[in-house]
Amino acid sequence: MNPGCITIYGDPISGNCMKVRFVADRLKIPYCWIEVSVLTAETRNPEFLAINPAGQVPVVVLADGRPLAQSNAIMLHLSEGSSLIPADAYERAIVHQWLFWEQYSHETAIAVRRFQKTYLKRPESEIDPSLKLKGERALALMNRHLVDRSHFVADRLTLADIALIAYTRWADEAGFDLNDWPCVHKWVMRIETELGLQART
Amino acid sequence: MNPGCITIYGDPISGNCMKVRFVADRLKIPYCWIEVSVLTAETRNPEFLAINPAGQVPVVVLADGRPLAQSNAIMLHLSEGSSLIPADAYERAIVHQWLFWEQYSHETAIAVRRFQKTYLKRPESEIDPSLKLKGERALALMNRHLVDRSHFVADRLTLADIALIAYTRWADEAGFDLNDWPCVHKWVMRIETELGLQART
Repeated sequence: MNPGCITIYGDPISGNCMKVRFVADRLKIPYCWIEVSVLTAETRNPEFLAINPAGQVPVVVLADGRPLAQSNAIMLHLSEGSSLIPADAYERAIVHQWLFWEQYSHETAIAVRRFQKTYLKRPESEIDPSLKLKGERALALMNRHLVDRSHFVADRLTLADIALIAYTRWADEAGFDLNDWPCVHKWVMRIETELGLQART
Repeated sequence: MNPGCITIYGDPISGNCMKVRFVADRLKIPYCWIEVSVLTAETRNPEFLAINPAGQVPVVVLADGRPLAQSNAIMLHLSEGSSLIPADAYERAIVHQWLFWEQYSHETAIAVRRFQKTYLKRPESEIDPSLKLKGERALALMNRHLVDRSHFVADRLTLADIALIAYTRWADEAGFDLNDWPCVHKWVMRIETELGLQART
């Protein structure tokens, strides 16, 4: 750990962890990155649980030594006062709305299905079929929203885009073909360019 | 709808909807309440989907006619500038952390299990057993946090308490006995008193 520098504990296979990196990179916030493997259950080690009793990555330790968990809460904290959070109260509320929707209705289908399929190597027959349906509903809702929009909120990059792109750009690894949701596909390419990420789709 | 007054679309059997009422009542924000039944799938009617394409309650229509969904996003918006959101940046971040944890790790076990058990009347044998385990983990984490605390954050009532009490006070209807988590039990009674709610436990 570097005094005066935030430490991000994360796993690069986790979109939730990558969100925090996207924000730190975008806002040029210096950080140390400590790799904690989800696959080998390092998040259940006593040393890790002392930092985050919920046993989840990402977690950050701030420059003053205090911990903060939950990817979207971390992003909100790091972005305070930046253009990633709209100054207008209603636009800010709509960013919050998408952040909670992402964690409840998107991540729980697309990230969970990707983990089971790509990392646990489960055959389709052993994956809960409701995850496919739920993921398709989430992508369809995003597609409708993006029909006449460049970004999720306020026609510019906000935390809503960063939260949602994390797993959407990996949707293929979850068994979804973004060609079925063309507005989502275009939006992914747009946000990848804005964030300086290597295109995947 | 009353011009100049917010309208809350909700179902009183939904803790997510009750959260919004708890906040509006606490802050003395006048509102109209329009009942939308989850059980009869009124949230899937075209008129409702025009307000919230995600087909979920609660949703509010603000005084200027603009909609806002997601219980925790609505609470954050209604509470801006009030004591329910700490002025200190780190305390505020920890409130956000609990709000996201509630939606990801608590509601998805306790509220889902309660709905299946109490409203869909499913026998225990037909309820996914992982929901029980997940709910117990959530309650155990809350209990550890509350061992030496009166409230979740900053030793006073914040949105973290309001988000978490909504379904925790109904944990019995989900098949959990709060006597197993005595610090949670005491906290529920304390917050019910603060919010002026009739004690259930």
